Amino acid sequence: MSSARKFVTVEGDFAMHQGGALTNPTIAYETWGELSEQRNNAVLVFTGLSPSAHAASSPKDPAPGWWEEVIGPGRAIDTRRFFVICVNSLGSCFGSTGPASINPETGEPYRCSFPVLSLEDVARGGREVIRHLGVEKLFATVGPSMGGMTALAFEIVFPGLSNALLIISSATRSLAFATALRSLQREMIRRDPNWSDGNYCEDAYPITGMRLARKLGMITYRSAEEWRERFGRERSAEECETGDSFAATFEIEAYLENHANKFTGQFDPNSYLYLSRASDLFDVADHGASLEAGIGRIEVSRAMVIGVVTDILFPLHQQRELAALFERDSREVEFIELPSIQGHDAFLVDMDNFRPPIARFFEG
Amino acid sequence: MSSARKFVTVEGDFAMHQGGALTNPTIAYETWGELSEQRNNAVLVFTGLSPSAHAASSPKDPAPGWWEEVIGPGRAIDTRRFFVICVNSLGSCFGSTGPASINPETGEPYRCSFPVLSLEDVARGGREVIRHLGVEKLFATVGPSMGGMTALAFEIVFPGLSNALLIISSATRSLAFATALRSLQREMIRRDPNWSDGNYCEDAYPITGMRLARKLGMITYRSAEEWRERFGRERSAEECETGDSFAATFEIEAYLENHANKFTGQFDPNSYLYLSRASDLFDVADHGASLEAGIGRIEVSRAMVIGVVTDILFPLHQQRELAALFERDSREVEFIELPSIQGHDAFLVDMDNFRPPIARFFEG
Repeated sequence: MSSARKFVTVEGDFAMHQGGALTNPTIAYETWGELSEQRNNAVLVFTGLSPSAHAASSPKDPAPGWWEEVIGPGRAIDTRRFFVICVNSLGSCFGSTGPASINPETGEPYRCSFPVLSLEDVARGGREVIRHLGVEKLFATVGPSMGGMTALAFEIVFPGLSNALLIISSATRSLAFATALRSLQREMIRRDPNWSDGNYCEDAYPITGMRLARKLGMITYRSAEEWRERFGRERSAEECETGDSFAATFEIEAYLENHANKFTGQFDPNSYLYLSRASDLFDVADHGASLEAGIGRIEVSRAMVIGVVTDILFPLHQQRELAALFERDSREVEFIELPSIQGHDAFLVDMDNFRPPIARFFEG
Repeated sequence: MSSARKFVTVEGDFAMHQGGALTNPTIAYETWGELSEQRNNAVLVFTGLSPSAHAASSPKDPAPGWWEEVIGPGRAIDTRRFFVICVNSLGSCFGSTGPASINPETGEPYRCSFPVLSLEDVARGGREVIRHLGVEKLFATVGPSMGGMTALAFEIVFPGLSNALLIISSATRSLAFATALRSLQREMIRRDPNWSDGNYCEDAYPITGMRLARKLGMITYRSAEEWRERFGRERSAEECETGDSFAATFEIEAYLENHANKFTGQFDPNSYLYLSRASDLFDVADHGASLEAGIGRIEVSRAMVIGVVTDILFPLHQQRELAALFERDSREVEFIELPSIQGHDAFLVDMDNFRPPIARFFEG
């Protein structure tokens, strides 16, 4: 499969936010549309924890992207008008330097010698990409989920680079419930004997831990209402065929099983650990000792904050709080509460609800 | 430690609801108070998934029970007035026959040769105990959580034995979200290499799987609101002491770690698997092809259904549905919606909210 992926290599030492450094790290990205002559139509998109920079298809890579229905010609983020840049997070495993990359100092993969990753580092990855592309001022920065926290980090650490900010199903920091779930996902991977303190090899991959973590993710990324409507108490067709009385009895169990199998093997387990922990560590209040001070550093002229009523990982009151923080600073801000039943993942699937406010934001 | 535990052995074959049979199974129970001369003051309590029959302290066993603040002299279920019986579930590991018990046919532990367990079997355990005690009519049957589903099974399979029914934080059947979480907990145990298809030995116990399952239970038994109020983003005191960058950073992580350690080792992993699955399999609608028909078989003269607004495992709409089913049958029913923030576990800890309605039910 051909790829539309491009790369920026940062020359020299890349000092990490929590200490340590990377040597000549690479940031992978993709772009759609053209940068205007005035260089004022660029849109920077940060991703959630697991996606690559392939947010949308393109002639070079026609495979559908993770936000295919949002980014494209005539879509809510219209690539006939905007030059859209999506960045693969530093620490991820889809082209950007991460724990699976070779450390040029040792010739060996970093694995768990990779320094502690912060979303401020991921944000700086985006900064390096736009500098490389000659973009001095962004039309907007956009981030859903972890990408929303990264976008906040970007605006705080590099104020003045962006005119507008769109934060979706995200927050100023993780709540204890979300941290507990992510911590448990990390423990599932770390307790897999194949994890071997991060030194797994390809033929003994911590597949069990990754599958368990993925299933917990799938359960909590959606909502109880959606599972109820989709699966109810339907029995799985496979139930009768196995003698194992603990095999999947219900359709919801078979569904999780089939989907966990798809994910596993695509994502580097150590990348997952680093990015998951970075999500828990991030806190706007670390920038100036309070949420108000942190948000006060942001210089965008307008913002939109979108949340979903059924999101249990980044609950709606967190988006309401974020919007109120912008409002307190007399910034132009729109808070949108969407009634989707798909929970935290709604921005990936519930296009009927998400398209109109995103399109309106980009018409602004 | 002395025990107040007593036992009933069922003579001969005990045919299981989903097929198979146990030979001479034992049901453990405890009692408090005295059976009146008219034998009309007995209260039967079924438990949630993990507790023993030790619901309250007594002179013979002064250790606090799992419902210590509810059952006792002058308490909401007043043992000066009522003869209270709590039953250890069949399939559990605190005196009743379960997967860890010796199968008299083979001289070996049942382990996974234990037949599929249903809450109807657990209910029959209660039936055998009250028969043994000479109780022909109960003042009331009570059940929280899985015990509430068992109490419904008891009333459906043995109609006419009880005057009143108190169902707490329970439902007519599991929803897909709760089933998904329980299924994942079971998988965590089954994927632990030490589980060995249920044939673990004491020196290689599936402790990792049990700890992961317990942590997921703890996260989902409470509410995001409670974790937020209790832990916020407090850092763990232990963080700085370890070199492991994935160790517990936040207080919520340290809390889960410490509490999971307490549970593990007390509970037989195979018992957990059987009881967890029995919770998922139970469905009132299996008794007469609809929820209405199932509830229609129940002959109590009054019922109370209590639910908690923050319960994510047995959400409030399930208790509302249950109460409506009783009302539809023109039964005297009271539905109580409690504002506790402790989620599904509130009946164990939020006594200020729970005591008044339970006391009122028993005054009736």
